[in-house]
Amino acid sequence: MTLDATHDPALRSWVPAAQVAGTDFPIQNLPLGAFVLGEGQAARLGVAIGDRILDLTRAAESGLLDGLHTAVVEACAAESLTPLLATGRGGLKALRGRVSALLNAEGAEGARARVVGALTVAMADVQMVLPATIGDYTDFYASIDHATNVGSMFRPDNPLLPNYRHVPIGYHGRASSIVVSGTPVRRPQGQTAAKPEGPPTFGPSARMDYELEVGAFIASGNVLGNTIPLGEAEHFLGGLVLVNDWSARDLQSWEYQPLGPFLAKNFATTVSPWVVTLDALAPFRLPARARGSDEPTPLPYLDDAHDRNAGGFGLTLEVWLRTAAMRETGEAAVRLSHGDFTRMYWTLGQLLTHHASNGCNLRPGDLIASGTVSGPTKESRGSMLELAWRGTEPITLPNGETRAFLADGDEVILRGWCERAGAVRIGLGECRGVLLAAE
Amino acid sequence: MTLDATHDPALRSWVPAAQVAGTDFPIQNLPLGAFVLGEGQAARLGVAIGDRILDLTRAAESGLLDGLHTAVVEACAAESLTPLLATGRGGLKALRGRVSALLNAEGAEGARARVVGALTVAMADVQMVLPATIGDYTDFYASIDHATNVGSMFRPDNPLLPNYRHVPIGYHGRASSIVVSGTPVRRPQGQTAAKPEGPPTFGPSARMDYELEVGAFIASGNVLGNTIPLGEAEHFLGGLVLVNDWSARDLQSWEYQPLGPFLAKNFATTVSPWVVTLDALAPFRLPARARGSDEPTPLPYLDDAHDRNAGGFGLTLEVWLRTAAMRETGEAAVRLSHGDFTRMYWTLGQLLTHHASNGCNLRPGDLIASGTVSGPTKESRGSMLELAWRGTEPITLPNGETRAFLADGDEVILRGWCERAGAVRIGLGECRGVLLAAE
Repeated sequence: MTLDATHDPALRSWVPAAQVAGTDFPIQNLPLGAFVLGEGQAARLGVAIGDRILDLTRAAESGLLDGLHTAVVEACAAESLTPLLATGRGGLKALRGRVSALLNAEGAEGARARVVGALTVAMADVQMVLPATIGDYTDFYASIDHATNVGSMFRPDNPLLPNYRHVPIGYHGRASSIVVSGTPVRRPQGQTAAKPEGPPTFGPSARMDYELEVGAFIASGNVLGNTIPLGEAEHFLGGLVLVNDWSARDLQSWEYQPLGPFLAKNFATTVSPWVVTLDALAPFRLPARARGSDEPTPLPYLDDAHDRNAGGFGLTLEVWLRTAAMRETGEAAVRLSHGDFTRMYWTLGQLLTHHASNGCNLRPGDLIASGTVSGPTKESRGSMLELAWRGTEPITLPNGETRAFLADGDEVILRGWCERAGAVRIGLGECRGVLLAAE
Repeated sequence: MTLDATHDPALRSWVPAAQVAGTDFPIQNLPLGAFVLGEGQAARLGVAIGDRILDLTRAAESGLLDGLHTAVVEACAAESLTPLLATGRGGLKALRGRVSALLNAEGAEGARARVVGALTVAMADVQMVLPATIGDYTDFYASIDHATNVGSMFRPDNPLLPNYRHVPIGYHGRASSIVVSGTPVRRPQGQTAAKPEGPPTFGPSARMDYELEVGAFIASGNVLGNTIPLGEAEHFLGGLVLVNDWSARDLQSWEYQPLGPFLAKNFATTVSPWVVTLDALAPFRLPARARGSDEPTPLPYLDDAHDRNAGGFGLTLEVWLRTAAMRETGEAAVRLSHGDFTRMYWTLGQLLTHHASNGCNLRPGDLIASGTVSGPTKESRGSMLELAWRGTEPITLPNGETRAFLADGDEVILRGWCERAGAVRIGLGECRGVLLAAE
């Protein structure tokens, strides 16, 4: 990916908060999302800028998008990002260029835009909704540190299965229960068994967990039966979000053999509302994780030896927790872990190419998630299962509370951002959810 | 379920082929589907009657649906059954009553309908398409005979896992690659390994299989966080179809640990085009499989002791095969196996209730499938994996060809129907697909 004028660190927006240090949404970011102005109203598409949102429907109505391809302009008036994603990387890039000019503190387009009434709305005045209509949701398992941690708990002698370093492991998740950040999540009921052979009982999960993940929305799709060469894979990706793959570990260990996780995961998955485009992330590409000398070269269809230098995303990730007691006393959230997305064993491009390698068709708006992002240190474990080592090493919070798994009222907050010298920091925003007691 | 006038065995339609012995689509059936009149045209909804289709859009235009609820009439003009399914069992039943009257050889409504031009089209003149817009697709594993067969191959001493008789095992499948009967299916490429520890190679699957399944389309949905009591589960089901869950067994055995099948299944799933409503099936309800004295009582949320008498569907299922050589010589398809849907360990109601027991939301148009329908005898094994016992006992066809797995050019044909004394036979139609060579 090459940088263009939209990445210029000197760019400034006429929206003041876009220049506040530490904002996730400077003019160099311009992530896409969907919002409603009030209860029961239709969703509108927008672009985050500082503490405000540029309303794309209003921009189109005002003629500010004139000249862009009709498909892009029409997609800006849709109720979800899916049609806009379907215009592909080209459509997203063209829109990005225009919006960058419209929000620019300098230049004719910016001057024209800033006098248009109601072109932006305050984030505080709207409700974000799920950004896209998601057809299929696929969850991968691409952190070798996570796979090794989890494997160690169940198979101390042989933590990593023989297929792991050859085949990107993934499974289909539930699309219907994906919710946007801020939606409370109810502790599920289900079957659990104290002993591996049962018998089970039915009741609220006692081992509720989160998983820190990165999600990617598909832009262009492929036709059923066609594959996606690795060199082209990123052309099919629209942008990234944060994903919390809520997991009921006790349901999972009882149900998952032989066909994988089902009710342990499909009660809810939370995504952050702002889709940060691959174009916005261009200044932060880094080499993908170096392969160890004992690690096999991937099969040719997954071999990115010639392209590995920019296969990673320099994305720092964090998990924060705020308990009900902390909210009562006014204490701020506490950071549980931090992760580095370049540590993943497989790149997003490899996951996508693998997914389509059998001809499986991906469609605009589909979501693929990375799997839990963990690192080699305790501080970089991306789930409570790993942090508290399957409940055997409960963690102690600054206020004295302990956690082996999540408690009712706990709010989990995921954050992610890119930062480097010479570029303006951009963020993914937040992915939040409070765990409610079982009903 | 109670029977009403639409089930009367004496009913006759003014469409002559609806009275031909052995038809799948007498006036007592009235299954719903979607079709196109020609390439590139919009899909229209219809009802199968003999060898013709009643065009629901045309019926609505002609005022023949006047008096039904507006939501039902509007849904009849949609391009997929999903909005009609969303009108629930009540909407489907009301439409069934009206269409039965319209197609009746006697009575004023039938007389009025038969003179409306272009109200029906010949099946031979249209192309069937996928009946519904499918949000999520879930595949279960509800045949204990299938689970035992497959388990025996991998764990001869312990064929059935301890969870099987307690928890209905299921996993999420791929919605995007579900295709309608008649769509050719391409043999997928993928990773396979001769030894469990690898290394793998990449190439066309050498162990292609079919799975004989029954699918159910969801009519009414539930709100995320709400459950569905067992006694109400069938109110959420719209109707049944045949499902071929194509499987690449060699991809599956290499990839499926620890998160379940992925690329081994998601390259294609075929469904039959006609959704046979639960109302149409009312005369064929039978007791669900009797629980053995050594089998545990289900946990209370799945315990259907008081309702088990009508939990089953008296549905006979068959798998037929026609090879390329047989097509060349004009030989007819050969029957590979036949199954009995009352043999399933879990009823469709139990599968649905379990699916929503953690609050997972089901939406109108979602598809749930039963898993391979196998029985206790060799003749009732619903997959080639079982019939040829993992390739170790190849089957010989009448023309001398042998099969351990599917060969390129093989056409797999699933059939299903209900029959009993005192009722008119009704059928699910056919679910066909030819396996094409890998590209």
